[in-house]
Amino acid sequence: MNNTDKSGYIFDNVRLTESGDSVIIIDQTKLPNEEVYLELKSIDDFYHAIKTLQVRGAPAIGICAGFALAVEAKRLSLLPDLSESDFFGKLHKAKCYLDSARPTAVNLIHMSDRVEKAAFLCAGKGISEIAESCLRESRLIQSEDAEMCFKIAEYGLSLVKSGDGILTHCNAGPLATSCYGTGLGALFLGKELGYEFHVYSDEMRPLMQGARLTSYELHRAGIDVTVICDNMASMVMKQGKIDACFVGCDRVAANGDTANKVGTSGVAVLARHYGIPFYVFCPSSTIDFECSSGNDIVIEEREETEISGLYFKKPVVPNGVKCYNPAFDVTDNGLITAIITEKGICRLPYEKSLSNLFGK
Amino acid sequence: MNNTDKSGYIFDNVRLTESGDSVIIIDQTKLPNEEVYLELKSIDDFYHAIKTLQVRGAPAIGICAGFALAVEAKRLSLLPDLSESDFFGKLHKAKCYLDSARPTAVNLIHMSDRVEKAAFLCAGKGISEIAESCLRESRLIQSEDAEMCFKIAEYGLSLVKSGDGILTHCNAGPLATSCYGTGLGALFLGKELGYEFHVYSDEMRPLMQGARLTSYELHRAGIDVTVICDNMASMVMKQGKIDACFVGCDRVAANGDTANKVGTSGVAVLARHYGIPFYVFCPSSTIDFECSSGNDIVIEEREETEISGLYFKKPVVPNGVKCYNPAFDVTDNGLITAIITEKGICRLPYEKSLSNLFGK
Repeated sequence: MNNTDKSGYIFDNVRLTESGDSVIIIDQTKLPNEEVYLELKSIDDFYHAIKTLQVRGAPAIGICAGFALAVEAKRLSLLPDLSESDFFGKLHKAKCYLDSARPTAVNLIHMSDRVEKAAFLCAGKGISEIAESCLRESRLIQSEDAEMCFKIAEYGLSLVKSGDGILTHCNAGPLATSCYGTGLGALFLGKELGYEFHVYSDEMRPLMQGARLTSYELHRAGIDVTVICDNMASMVMKQGKIDACFVGCDRVAANGDTANKVGTSGVAVLARHYGIPFYVFCPSSTIDFECSSGNDIVIEEREETEISGLYFKKPVVPNGVKCYNPAFDVTDNGLITAIITEKGICRLPYEKSLSNLFGK
Repeated sequence: MNNTDKSGYIFDNVRLTESGDSVIIIDQTKLPNEEVYLELKSIDDFYHAIKTLQVRGAPAIGICAGFALAVEAKRLSLLPDLSESDFFGKLHKAKCYLDSARPTAVNLIHMSDRVEKAAFLCAGKGISEIAESCLRESRLIQSEDAEMCFKIAEYGLSLVKSGDGILTHCNAGPLATSCYGTGLGALFLGKELGYEFHVYSDEMRPLMQGARLTSYELHRAGIDVTVICDNMASMVMKQGKIDACFVGCDRVAANGDTANKVGTSGVAVLARHYGIPFYVFCPSSTIDFECSSGNDIVIEEREETEISGLYFKKPVVPNGVKCYNPAFDVTDNGLITAIITEKGICRLPYEKSLSNLFGK
């Protein structure tokens, strides 16, 4: 299975070119008004694309990082007179630089680790063979992701029924992955099977991923979607319009505490108050067993101007007034009804259920 | 007491001119980038200013509506050959038109009622005397509001201490009233008395009143303020930064259910979850004893473009995707720690405490 096997609503959002010299991405910061594709070649290109959210979503970042190291390995393999030892040194330097682009996104580090490990496993076989191994590994990362999305979508679909109202926060759809998406996968798969959903998408301030990206994907697939401001989630829940909340995640601790885009914890508290199930869709690569709880998760703080000015015609915050802009927050495991992975559905207590499922 | 007795951070935001021929307002839609003052003369000017939020906040709307009818009465009194009966007919038509500008704002109707009643009480004394009576009544409305704000600020200050972190949603400051404001009054009064507060202001999508207006007022008064996106309230509460939530209200039902700017109910649910007191600041004119619960409150729905495009450089919602834009929501009385009025502080059960305090 790969992206291009799926038609219509699936974007070819992170694609390694045939030659392995570059990666094509759709620039997510330009959506929904323009569909701009970028070709990434140098490690600086990749760093910039990840840092500035041109590519975003934990799985898509992981795939992109894998491709980035493979492309870099290929580039290095063409340099004259490079020793294997120098090659590994330069590749590691590129990896560390790349990893620093988004400190909260554990997929980035996992996938760059995988490609570097594939390189190490071919040590002694010559740089050209090593670079080839990096390319193979990075392609495998993408095809595994597509398969993972499909499994998560199938498990997710078992939790809802046709006609349900679904609230989602941020973007965990095809753009964030390589296929159906995670948090939205069940909706796309359901649509193919004839389910009708009514989706409410939080707009997701400050960067508007819900308004710009999630609604775009869903609308393109013919799924009924309505955009609301983040502060309207309480009202639509109270009105009985929501039967379940579907969100993705950026990192899940061993106890089930979940870091996801800021505001997710608020949606979870509201869902609990109104008696609505709150589901986290989680590729197993996002689970960090070395992180015992949400307290250990470092939260990225981003520029104040994302709040005060970035998308606006004029500044909306007076000169001299501070803004606080955490990119993520942590949802306590007790607020999460279930964590849906490609291997199955976990429920409280997560320390046990996650560990059982993944054999740690 | 009037606005101009207070210096610095108090805006002269709704002022009847000496002649009684017009009203000066600061155009709140232009803040914080421009301080533009508008002169309102015709009933169409007033309708437009209220409808488009150039003047906003329940008390300020009420004051403006009172002035509007007084200015209209004066204008009518200068028409040649108008009978008293025709005068009352035209004044009533103007009142009904004005009342339709913001259906959820009960202050609007209360205050236009008061001025019309003042007119009726002078029936038979001649149109000139009637118009004079309207002017007196409208000025009284404003001075009562200033006194009311001061009392609410005093009561509010008794609920917090210096050093506290306060979260506020939307704008219930001086711009929304004629003096200290309601929800923010305690902060301004406290500042004068040497209290130090750390205020977090929700930006308040879609119209950004928190970012544009609340932070502007507070910063101008030298109060420490940080703007956050609405979806970050959960995080700052979880981090222990918030000791109390202060909000205003647009209408309070007899049982304490409170309509305020959309998202207020979400803040209340979060505050309950994190064990933080949630205070509603409420001029008694906002209490509607004829409305038994929040279920009877009609919620205004506003244009989709306020979400998708109004403030943005480019549309942030794809073409063809729906937006849902309720202007208010209802916070259940059980989530409200106390309702602070100019007559005192009410606590659960509100049906009893509100009724006791106001003798209904």
